[in-house]
This record gives sequence, structure tokens and C-alpha cells, in this order.
Amino acid sequence: MELTKSQTKIILLSIDGLGGVDHPEYDKTELEYAATPNLDQLAKISETGLITHVDFGVTPGSGPGHLALFGYPPEEYLIGRGVLSALGVGYKPKRNDIFFRGNLAIQDNNGILTDRRAGRVSTETTQKIMEILNKEIAQIGDIKVQFLPEKEHRFVLILNGEGLQTDITDTDPQVTGKPKLESGALTPGSSKTAEIINNVVSKIDTILPKYKLGPNTALFRGVSSLPNIPQFKDRYLLDKTLCIATYPMYKGLSTLVGMTIALSPDDEDLNHLATTFSNNYTNYEFFFIHVKKADSYGEDGNFLAKAKVIEQTDKVLIPVITAKQDCVVCVTGDHSTPAIMAAHSWHPVPVLIHSKFARRSLINSFSERECSKGNLGTFPAQHLMKLLLAHAQKTKKFGA
Amino acid sequence: MELTKSQTKIILLSIDGLGGVDHPEYDKTELEYAATPNLDQLAKISETGLITHVDFGVTPGSGPGHLALFGYPPEEYLIGRGVLSALGVGYKPKRNDIFFRGNLAIQDNNGILTDRRAGRVSTETTQKIMEILNKEIAQIGDIKVQFLPEKEHRFVLILNGEGLQTDITDTDPQVTGKPKLESGALTPGSSKTAEIINNVVSKIDTILPKYKLGPNTALFRGVSSLPNIPQFKDRYLLDKTLCIATYPMYKGLSTLVGMTIALSPDDEDLNHLATTFSNNYTNYEFFFIHVKKADSYGEDGNFLAKAKVIEQTDKVLIPVITAKQDCVVCVTGDHSTPAIMAAHSWHPVPVLIHSKFARRSLINSFSERECSKGNLGTFPAQHLMKLLLAHAQKTKKFGA
Repeated sequence: MELTKSQTKIILLSIDGLGGVDHPEYDKTELEYAATPNLDQLAKISETGLITHVDFGVTPGSGPGHLALFGYPPEEYLIGRGVLSALGVGYKPKRNDIFFRGNLAIQDNNGILTDRRAGRVSTETTQKIMEILNKEIAQIGDIKVQFLPEKEHRFVLILNGEGLQTDITDTDPQVTGKPKLESGALTPGSSKTAEIINNVVSKIDTILPKYKLGPNTALFRGVSSLPNIPQFKDRYLLDKTLCIATYPMYKGLSTLVGMTIALSPDDEDLNHLATTFSNNYTNYEFFFIHVKKADSYGEDGNFLAKAKVIEQTDKVLIPVITAKQDCVVCVTGDHSTPAIMAAHSWHPVPVLIHSKFARRSLINSFSERECSKGNLGTFPAQHLMKLLLAHAQKTKKFGA
Repeated sequence: MELTKSQTKIILLSIDGLGGVDHPEYDKTELEYAATPNLDQLAKISETGLITHVDFGVTPGSGPGHLALFGYPPEEYLIGRGVLSALGVGYKPKRNDIFFRGNLAIQDNNGILTDRRAGRVSTETTQKIMEILNKEIAQIGDIKVQFLPEKEHRFVLILNGEGLQTDITDTDPQVTGKPKLESGALTPGSSKTAEIINNVVSKIDTILPKYKLGPNTALFRGVSSLPNIPQFKDRYLLDKTLCIATYPMYKGLSTLVGMTIALSPDDEDLNHLATTFSNNYTNYEFFFIHVKKADSYGEDGNFLAKAKVIEQTDKVLIPVITAKQDCVVCVTGDHSTPAIMAAHSWHPVPVLIHSKFARRSLINSFSERECSKGNLGTFPAQHLMKLLLAHAQKTKKFGA
């Protein structure tokens, strides 16, 4: 696809976990149950359909789901959770860094895991523990060690030095009732890295019990180095791109593709997202706005609370977005999170695209069922950006 | 796909630029606005859907659009405009020919282009100029030079000789207000060709002003040799194929894939297309019928005139086609040309396939919106020929 520049702005609103499944009690999906007059009206005059983020039947994580929305085939761009978390908390990567996603956790006297999240220990406690660990484990041999707190029990471990490699196995067994795993080298060159992470774990197991702050061990997974991922400015000729998100991982992903991260409060007040959008509107040409809580409540199995987040998004964010003239607006999500499954799912996600060149789909409302009758059909999410660029007249004709 | 022969004829009607977008004044697309009782009835009892010719969000030129309709992935078969124009005016290619698409143009005394089409100079004047240039520039070194008039300001330049190569840059800057470009060699072997085309341009710049016929210079682009493209008779076992088109480029493309070009008047009277079809019906097994003017009016931004061409097609051509028994009929287009955009666009194009083995889609009319609910869904145009061959029982079972 050959690209060109245009003045038209593109707004991509991702409601995390948007898609749902009929709830037996309410006889509807969350999106159908929510009162969404603004989205319904917008869907009528928009092109609509459903998108699949990875493959038929594949349940996407939020990372791959958003990569697909951004137009990167997620099976080609595998990005470790570690680097996303590091970028998410604002860390500036250095040469020879590798990153681990860490969980503070609890094990019993026999080393059997009893809580992989240490009772979702508070962010403050995690900050305190990170300070301790940074002091006590600053260096192992020639490798620098750094701990960064994320939210609640989550943290990032960064190793820096020569000869580090990422093809090692996780220490997080992903279940309780079992001991932690020893990290192993998948290739001869990575044995040094596996040794160091095992060494870090055993030091943590010695240090933490002394402080009696709750967590007495830590789990590591998602080791990764900084991936070489094409930037929005090169891939789409989009130079001024803004990420309006509150959760670290989404900021991390947006940083990776070259977006500017909007300064925004850490809580997820939709009014703050709306204000941030309005205040920055003139200065950017692409906006990625992320609403997290629909997914969080979906994962909790809380149908009504998820519907409420969608309702609030319709009430607070949509009018602010649709008030802008001559732009391209896309509303969708990164995967489904049906409350009845209390988990992400593979079900395709509703999508709408509005511009002055949109063929109106004239569907009755913005929902999974109506969008399945929409004029875009069901298509892979990785093609979405191409449609948005076309609607914004940022593409050139192919051939004479 | 393994093929076989059958008696069933296939008729592919391409209405150029068929697809549209809702016009704010008429609240409909061109195809919806046009009264098309015959197409509507046909769509009901046909398989229907939408086709995309190149890729999501990619606006096809008419060349790639038709290549896709003919079943050739347009990104694999890149065909220069030069050779299409040459074939279109009936030129029979020889060994060592290379082809340029030319524009007669006007530049000011400082060599700045003021009109890339010389006021759309008449075909007659262009013919006169070609005669002059053929006399004055018959040969440059060991290279034979030949000029052929196309329509209005358009012409074809053919160079013939040893050592010509096509990897050179255009002299047409594609905009006015700038001087012409010097052609450059993209590989060492093509410097001779670049020198010759620059030499041709400087000779034209000396010759044309003397005759005071309007144009005083010429622009060249789309240099190409005869591509090696599989023939319909080999690719589809279709031996007797007829192109019924009036515009040179479409005849050129059809020649390239091995179709016979019907003798037809140069004007685009739909009655002539219908008569040509009827007169040749018994002698061919595949018919490509091309209606150009829907696209031309779309490009002019003339919603009503485009709708009128569609209406006339419905009235004049469709009854003649549907009167034929036991054939496979496909009606579609090569891309959308929404009048509100006054340009080609990426929007998918309605398609219908009728045969005695068609699953009736029972949609209400032949339109973008109704076809988006059709039973074929939205699919890449390059798969269309396979469906037509299947409906014509020209395909074999795969496996036992």
C-alpha cells in the first residue's frame, strides 16, 4: 500500500474486551444490554463489521489484540510481556537490556506456591519491596540488576550486561500448589542468563522473609529484549500520534510503535480521557484511546459492571469524539471478554468506521449481532489500519 | 484447480467504477438511485456479494482492477501502461519492442509545464502530430522510433532495437508548475534507454513549436515491455474468448490474456455493445463486456449521469444477456468510483453470479448495501473466475 499525507485525523477507540456472549439471565450480550444511544446512532451511519485479531478460535491477549488493531500481524510480532511492562512504567531502554515481567508471590515452607499474586499486594508495598531489592541485589557478577514497581503485585526486572539472551524458560509455573520452576537455557548461549535469573530468585527468597511485608518470593516470565518493530511514522506516515491510556502495558505497546504517551492520571476516569483527547486534538493526527475497565469487569464475570463501563463510554467519550468534524472514527476492541466466561475469548469483536466517505451500514445498533450483518463483514483486525488510512485519504491509487 | 471443458458459456459484464458511496443529497449510492429492475430481479436469483480487487483500503486503477477480475493477482502482475495502450490501439508487438505511454502537453518558455494534457487536444490533432513525429524522428542511432495516436492527448511511443531496458524513470512529473523530468537509469544496463528517451524529448521540444498545433512538448511514463502473462486458453482452458470494449486500455489488457477483440465502434453506444454480443454469441465461450462511462461520470463527480449509465446498462444490455439460456452471467465492476469522491476508491464492489446452479441470495436489489448481505460475503476479486468456471462446470473434483 503506497501512502501519502493528508490533513484528516484518525481516532481509534479501543474498548478493551468489548465483545461479549449472551448472558442467560439477561438474554443479551453486555454491549446489547448497555444503553448506548450515541454508538447506535454512529453505527447506523458507519461501515460496520466484526474483526478477528489472531486467527479463528484463537483467544488474544491484550498485547497481540492491540498489535493487530495497530496493523501488525500478531503472530509475526511476538513481544514479551517484560519489555511492555518496562516501557509502560516509563523506563527508557538501554543497549543490552533484557526484561522480565515479575509477580510478587507467596510460597509455603516447602516452597509450594500458595498465591501467585501475594493477595494482590498494594502498589505501595511493591514499591517498598522494589527499593529493598534494588539495594540488596544491585549486581550479579558483571550484570546490573534493576527492579521497577508496576501496579499491585506486578513488577519489572531488568538485567543489563554483555552476553544476556532471552531464550530461557519462565520460573512462573502459572499455577499454585506447585513449586516455582528453575529457569533453563533453550540454547547453549543463554545458560548465563538462566543462571542469573535463578540466582536472583534464590536471593529474593532469602531477602523477602526477613522484611515480613507479605510476599516472600517472586515469579518471572515473559523475558524479552527490545523488539525491532516498525514505527507508525514509517509504516503509516503518521508522525504525530498520541496514546491516551492509563494502564502501563498499553502505554508500553504504544511507545514501541512510536506514539507519544499523553500525560494522564493513573485512575481511569473516562472524563479525564475525554479531556486529554480534547486538549490534544489540534496537535496530533492519530489518536489511540484505550478504555480498560470493560475487560477488567468481564474478567471478574461482572456482566452489569462491564455493561456500565460501555454505557459510560457511550455517554462520556463518544459525544466528545463525534463532535470533531472531518475525521475518521473507529470504535472497536482488542478481543472479547464475555462475563459468562470471566476470561478473554476468541469471539470476533464489533467494529465501526465513520468518515465522510463511509458507506452507511444502516444497522440498528452497535452490537455483536448487528455488526455481524454490517457491510464490512468479518475480517482480520490487521487490515483495519489500511481501511482507516484509506478513509483518511492517506493512500495512493494502485496502478493506472 | 483442475479444469475440464464444458459447453457452458460465461459472460462477465464489468461496469467500470460501479461501486459508490451514499450521496448526501440523494441519500443513496448511484447504483441504489438508478432504476435497475432487470439487475434487481437478476440479483434476487443470483449469488451475490462484494469483491475487493487489490487489498483492504487499496484503491485500484482500472488495469489492476480488471486483472483481478480476470483472476490474476494484481500485485503479482504489474503491467506498464505503455504496453496496454499499444495493444489497445491494435499494435502487434515485435521482439525487442518497449512501450511508453505519452501525453502531449504544454510548457512555457522556461520549460515549466502549464498543461499536462494540452487542453485535451483533439484526437485528430494528435494523429497529425504523430505523423509529423514519425517522419522527423524515425530512428535514433540503431533504435527504431514509432509514435501511435491514442485518444485525445494520449499516444504511445514504441522503441525497437537491441539493448533496450525498462528500468528507467518517467519524464512526466505528474504535476504542472514544474519542469519535465530527465529520465534516469535505475540499473547500469538501462542507461542507453534513458539516453534515447531524453533524446526523443529534446527532439520533440524542437519540432513541435514549429508546427503551432497547440502542444509543444510531450511527457512519458509507464515504460514497459510485453509481459509474460498466462493466457486464458492455458489458465482456464477457455479457447474462444471475446472482449467487447471500446476504450483502448481494456482492449489492450484483454489482448494480453489472449482474448479476441470484437470489432466495435469507437463511441460507447450500449446498443452497439449489445448487438456485438448477440452477433458473436454462438462463436465464443467467454465474453468480457466493458461499460466505461459509469466510471467516467463518477470521476467527474456527476452522480446523476453515473446513475443514468447504470440505468441504461440495465435497460439495454441486461435483457440481451439474460435472454441467453444455460450460461453463467456475472455482473460487477473493477473498482468503486463514488461521485462524492470524484475518484476511484477502495470500497468493495457489488457482484452477482447467475447460473442454473446458483444459490439464490433473495436480496432485494442489486446494490452495495444489499450485496453486503449477499450469500457470497466479501471476498478478493481474484477468486471470481474460479467461481464462474465452477458454475460453468469447467472444474474437476479435488480428491476422490
